[in-house]
Amino acid sequence: MSSASGEAERREIDERLAGATIGILGGTGAQGNGLGRRFAAAGHPVLLGSRVAARAQEAAGHLAAEGLSVSGVANADAAAADVVVVAVPYEGHESLLRTHAAALAGKVIIDCVNPLGFDRQGAYPLAVPAGSAAQEAAAALPDSHVVAAFHHVSAVLLADPEVIEVPTDVLVVGDDPQAVALVAALADQIPGMRGIYAGRLRNAHQLEALTANLISVNRRYSAHAGLRVTDV
Amino acid sequence: MSSASGEAERREIDERLAGATIGILGGTGAQGNGLGRRFAAAGHPVLLGSRVAARAQEAAGHLAAEGLSVSGVANADAAAADVVVVAVPYEGHESLLRTHAAALAGKVIIDCVNPLGFDRQGAYPLAVPAGSAAQEAAAALPDSHVVAAFHHVSAVLLADPEVIEVPTDVLVVGDDPQAVALVAALADQIPGMRGIYAGRLRNAHQLEALTANLISVNRRYSAHAGLRVTDV
Repeated sequence: MSSASGEAERREIDERLAGATIGILGGTGAQGNGLGRRFAAAGHPVLLGSRVAARAQEAAGHLAAEGLSVSGVANADAAAADVVVVAVPYEGHESLLRTHAAALAGKVIIDCVNPLGFDRQGAYPLAVPAGSAAQEAAAALPDSHVVAAFHHVSAVLLADPEVIEVPTDVLVVGDDPQAVALVAALADQIPGMRGIYAGRLRNAHQLEALTANLISVNRRYSAHAGLRVTDV
Repeated sequence: MSSASGEAERREIDERLAGATIGILGGTGAQGNGLGRRFAAAGHPVLLGSRVAARAQEAAGHLAAEGLSVSGVANADAAAADVVVVAVPYEGHESLLRTHAAALAGKVIIDCVNPLGFDRQGAYPLAVPAGSAAQEAAAALPDSHVVAAFHHVSAVLLADPEVIEVPTDVLVVGDDPQAVALVAALADQIPGMRGIYAGRLRNAHQLEALTANLISVNRRYSAHAGLRVTDV
């Protein structure tokens, strides 16, 4: 791609993103809630979704009290946003997406689900028949543009209003170049983050599973680890 | 672990590593050769191994001409080193290890094999019945201490004598804490690198597979990407 067309493409993406509402399925969980905070701080109206709207309203109230544009709604209403983030627990992930497939059609869907199990030895990746949660989402949402990203951001850092910059790169994988570029640009809007293209959706599994390693890192070093890609 | 016992442990590891010879199975490949260069530059006598000793001797000659302590030998002789790195192609990995299991018994074995396939869409992880190449190695070498590490170091940077620092963290996984600590300390000896504990051997697969993503990063950004762990 020439530099000129790259700039034109970037301008088009910025226009698509400007003012876009971000819906978050699972917006009361730590990851979804933290991402909602950051997207709102970047200027997006955010719809935090939950199975129980009252719980979402309570969670949204804390962020709205800080002056952020965040509303709490049922997941069905969060699915009506311009761009939708899937941050639900892995259990029930696929059936939730099938339920909302019509509302999610034609949209960029960001799946950041990490299918992990935990036992006395720590975290480990669960076997996912589709290969990854992201591929499962793509199969459940054939008319959407599913992109996998935001797996490794520390929920603790996201949630902390004192943390202005979240120092981590966001590895973005997907098969639709425009959707991938939009999600990478969205990551770029969060101070400290960079969105980095890291392959096709078939390479989502190891990003999801790598969260198990980062949990080990966090335990060993008492850290809130993130990743930076060097030489990019 | 208290700070004092941490220091004592570190001293013991440094003593074990001081002057340790490093053998490299597959020392004529890009990754094995590049690691051999760096371990030799860090002061270790290195035995580059190959199925064909003459090829290893030729590869070692280039490094020895730079004043590095590197010899080329048959894989069987490289397996006699104090610490042995496995950097062979995935095909034949397991049978090679079974062949040399007796020589490798009781030792720290560093597996850095990435089981990847390539097609028109780029790289993707191969399905490995044992879960990962590292777990396959552990099954083939029940009397060795298998640690997985050095998957993501850029072979291009390793090979370049003008590159003094290789800016990447080395994620180290394994089930034997002393072996893990020794491999992390070995990574620390290479300028620019840090060895970071990243979980048990059952979490090796995603480190191996992540190399497919880094290949996509390298293609997209014309980079020699590595990884840094933030907040550690």
